[in-house]
Amino acid sequence: MKALRVGIAGLGTVGASVARIVVEQGEALSARCGRRLELKAVSARDKRKDRGFGMAGVEWFDDPVTLARSADIDLFAELMGGEGDPAKAAVEAALQRGVPVVTANKALLAHHGVELANAAESKDLALNFEAAVAGGIPIIKALREGLGANRISRVYGILNGTCNYILTTMEASGRSFEDVLAEAQRLGYAEADPTFDIGGMDTAHKLSLLAAVAFSNAPALDGIHVEGIERITPLDIKFAHEFGFRIKLLGLATRTANGVEQRVHPAMVPLGTPLADVDGVFNAVVAEGDLVGKSVYEGRGAGAGPTASAVMADVLDIARGVRLSAFGSPASRIQRPKIVPISEHSGACYLRFTVIDRPGVIAVLSRCLADQAISIESMLQRSRSPGGAVPVVMITHEAEESAMAKALSAVVATGIVMEQPCMVRIERF
Amino acid sequence: MKALRVGIAGLGTVGASVARIVVEQGEALSARCGRRLELKAVSARDKRKDRGFGMAGVEWFDDPVTLARSADIDLFAELMGGEGDPAKAAVEAALQRGVPVVTANKALLAHHGVELANAAESKDLALNFEAAVAGGIPIIKALREGLGANRISRVYGILNGTCNYILTTMEASGRSFEDVLAEAQRLGYAEADPTFDIGGMDTAHKLSLLAAVAFSNAPALDGIHVEGIERITPLDIKFAHEFGFRIKLLGLATRTANGVEQRVHPAMVPLGTPLADVDGVFNAVVAEGDLVGKSVYEGRGAGAGPTASAVMADVLDIARGVRLSAFGSPASRIQRPKIVPISEHSGACYLRFTVIDRPGVIAVLSRCLADQAISIESMLQRSRSPGGAVPVVMITHEAEESAMAKALSAVVATGIVMEQPCMVRIERF
Repeated sequence: MKALRVGIAGLGTVGASVARIVVEQGEALSARCGRRLELKAVSARDKRKDRGFGMAGVEWFDDPVTLARSADIDLFAELMGGEGDPAKAAVEAALQRGVPVVTANKALLAHHGVELANAAESKDLALNFEAAVAGGIPIIKALREGLGANRISRVYGILNGTCNYILTTMEASGRSFEDVLAEAQRLGYAEADPTFDIGGMDTAHKLSLLAAVAFSNAPALDGIHVEGIERITPLDIKFAHEFGFRIKLLGLATRTANGVEQRVHPAMVPLGTPLADVDGVFNAVVAEGDLVGKSVYEGRGAGAGPTASAVMADVLDIARGVRLSAFGSPASRIQRPKIVPISEHSGACYLRFTVIDRPGVIAVLSRCLADQAISIESMLQRSRSPGGAVPVVMITHEAEESAMAKALSAVVATGIVMEQPCMVRIERF
Repeated sequence: MKALRVGIAGLGTVGASVARIVVEQGEALSARCGRRLELKAVSARDKRKDRGFGMAGVEWFDDPVTLARSADIDLFAELMGGEGDPAKAAVEAALQRGVPVVTANKALLAHHGVELANAAESKDLALNFEAAVAGGIPIIKALREGLGANRISRVYGILNGTCNYILTTMEASGRSFEDVLAEAQRLGYAEADPTFDIGGMDTAHKLSLLAAVAFSNAPALDGIHVEGIERITPLDIKFAHEFGFRIKLLGLATRTANGVEQRVHPAMVPLGTPLADVDGVFNAVVAEGDLVGKSVYEGRGAGAGPTASAVMADVLDIARGVRLSAFGSPASRIQRPKIVPISEHSGACYLRFTVIDRPGVIAVLSRCLADQAISIESMLQRSRSPGGAVPVVMITHEAEESAMAKALSAVVATGIVMEQPCMVRIERF
C-alpha cells in the first residue's frame, strides 16, 4: 500500500515531536497501522531553526494554508493553535481538498467544531482531535468508541496541568498562589501570560469538547460557568484538609432532566477519591455511564511526548482507514444542548469569611445563611485576634446557587466582612 | 445501509445483556456507528428461560457451532466462555464463513489467540476481545490504538475483582481469608469453586492478553509466574500498613533487555499510589509508554453492565467497518516473546516468619539472609510470647529471587520456623 504522506503545520514542541516520530518511526509503525508513514511537507515561521529531525526531502511552506492547499499530502496535521486563522483557514483548506485532518487545537474545535465537523463529514473525512484534551489520556477515543454503547450521565476531571501543579505545590509548601505561580513561570510550567490557564478558560475549552463527545452535543463553550484558582489561599487548602478534602480545579459536565450543566471552578474533592490523589502536572477524567458505572483515566495532560502520542494515535487511525464522526455522532445531527444555568445548580459549599474577631459575628453570619434556608454542616474559627481580622470557615449542606449568592450578598451588606467571601463548591462523587 | 445482523452464542448474564442492548438500542446506536444493529440469532442451553428481552423474530439454535455456520449473521458474538470447544469450534466456524467475531473469552484467547488471529486475518476479519480484560475499562483499545505510537515498557494492574474484594474486605474487617472468601461466595462475588480467581489464573489469562497487545507479542500464558492470595493473613495486611503499603493481587508484564517478564502475585503497593486506592470489585491498569509516561485506567472489571459495554464497543467498531489486528500487529508477524524466568527477577520483599520467641532467633534469620547477600531494610517483632510462636516481619532491600529462595530454604532448614515463611514482593512504581 502507498505511504500515507503527512503534512504538518506548526513545528513548536509538539509539531517537531510529531515530525520526528513520523520520520524516525514511520516504517516501524506500519506494523501497527498497515501503512507506511512519510513526512511530506511542513510549515512553520522560521525555516532555519534546527528542530531535531531530518528535513531532507521534506517540502517547506511558509504559509500553512498554502501547504494545506497545494502539497501532495494525504493527511494534514494542524499543530499551530489559535482559535482563528491561519489555523482555521488551513484546516478548512485541507478538508476542502479532501484531506483528513488531525489537530491538537482545543480553541479551534471549541469555537468552530460543528462547522468543521460538517465540512469534514460532507467529504467523508476524519477530523480527529485526541490531543486537544488531556494529551496522555486517550479519553476522546474512550468516550467515542470504548464507552460508545453507554449513555454517559456525567464527565468531569482535572484538565489543566498548570493549575494542578500550582495547587499541589501550594499545598505541599504552604506558599501563596502568587509566589507559586511566579515559580511555575520561571520553571516553564506556566505561560508568561497565565490568565488562560489559571482563569479556567483552558479547562473550559477542553470541557466543551469532552461534553460534546460524551453527550453527542455541539460544544457549547459559552454555556460554561467559569471560575479560576486565583482566589484560593494556603489557608483554604489547609482548612480543606481539616474537613477531609483537597482543592482541585475541575471541569464538570452533567446531563440533567433540564439539559446540560457545565462548570469550571475550584472544588473540594474528598480525600481518598481518585481525583484527590492526582498530583502535579497530571490530568484525570472520570466518566459515568449507564453500563460501566464509573471509569477513571489518569495521565500526563501536556508536554511534547504525551501530546505527540495523542496526535499519532489520530494519525494511525487515519492510516488504518478509520473515519469516525468528530463528536461521536454525525455533525448534521448534533445540536447545541439546552444549558442549565449555574444559578440552578445545587450543592454543598465551603465558605471562608474574613471578619473582625468580636462576639456576635457568627450569629450575624448564621442569620444571613438561615434567611436563605442554608444549613451549616460544620464551622471553624480557630485563630483568635480580638478586634482584628480572623477567618471563619464553614461547610454548608446542599443549597441552591441562587440562594447562596443572596446569602453572600447579605453578609457583605452587613459590613462585618473585611473582604469578599471565598466560596469553594464541594463535589462528592 | 443494511443492518448488521448479530448472532450471539451464550445467554448468561453477559450474553443476555448484550442481546437486550442490541434489541432495545440497535436503532439508537446507529447514530454512533452509522449502521442499524439487529439481533438475528442466538444459541444457549435452555430455550425456555426468560432472559428479559424480546425474542420475536430471533432465530434459535441449540448448538453454537451450527449458529456460527448456518445463520445469516454479519457478526458472531461468542459469550459462552471456556478455553476449548464448543467456544473454539464456534469461533473458528464463524471466521471460516467470513463472519467477524467478538468474544469475552480470555481463556480461549490466552490459549489459542494467535491461531484464531491468523484465521481472522487470512480472511481480513476482526477478532475483538475488549471484554476479555477489565470489562469496564477500554484498555485493549487504549493500548492498541490510543497509545499505538508508544513503545510500552510495562503494563500492570489489578485484574481480578474477586481477589480485590477479598483483600479490601480483609483489610477493613480484620477477618481471615477463609472467612471473607466464604462470605464472598454467599454474596455471589466469588464462584463456588474459587480456585481460578484466588489462585491467580484468571489474572494470568488477562495479563497474557494485555502483554500481547502492549508488546505486540503472542500471548504466553505458560510463561507467567503465578501465585494466588490464599496465604495472605490479616496480620500481613496490618504489617503492610505499618510499612506504608497495601497488599493487592497484581499482574505485571515488563519488557527487559532479556525478554519479557510476566508475574502474577500478591504485592505490596505504596500507599498513595493509584493502585493502592483501588477498592472492592474495581480493576485498574497502568501502562508505561515512551511518549506518554505513565497512564492509569480504573473501572469495574466484571458484571453484566461493564462487560456488555466492552462487547458492544467491539460490535460498534465492526459496524463502523473498523478492522484491526487482534493483537495490534499482524498475526503473521507476532511471535512468542523470550520469557525472563522469575528466578532472574530482582526486587524488595516483605517476609514474615513464625518463630519460637526466644533469644537468638533473629540472629539466625539475619544470618540466613546475609549469607545470600540480602540486606534488611527494616524489621519488626511486635508481640511477645516467650517460648511460644510469634511473627517476625521484615522488609528487605532489592534482592534476586534465586538468592531469596535459597535464603528461605536455609531458614526452613534451621528448624526455627513453625510454618513456611510468607513472602510478598514489594512493587514501587
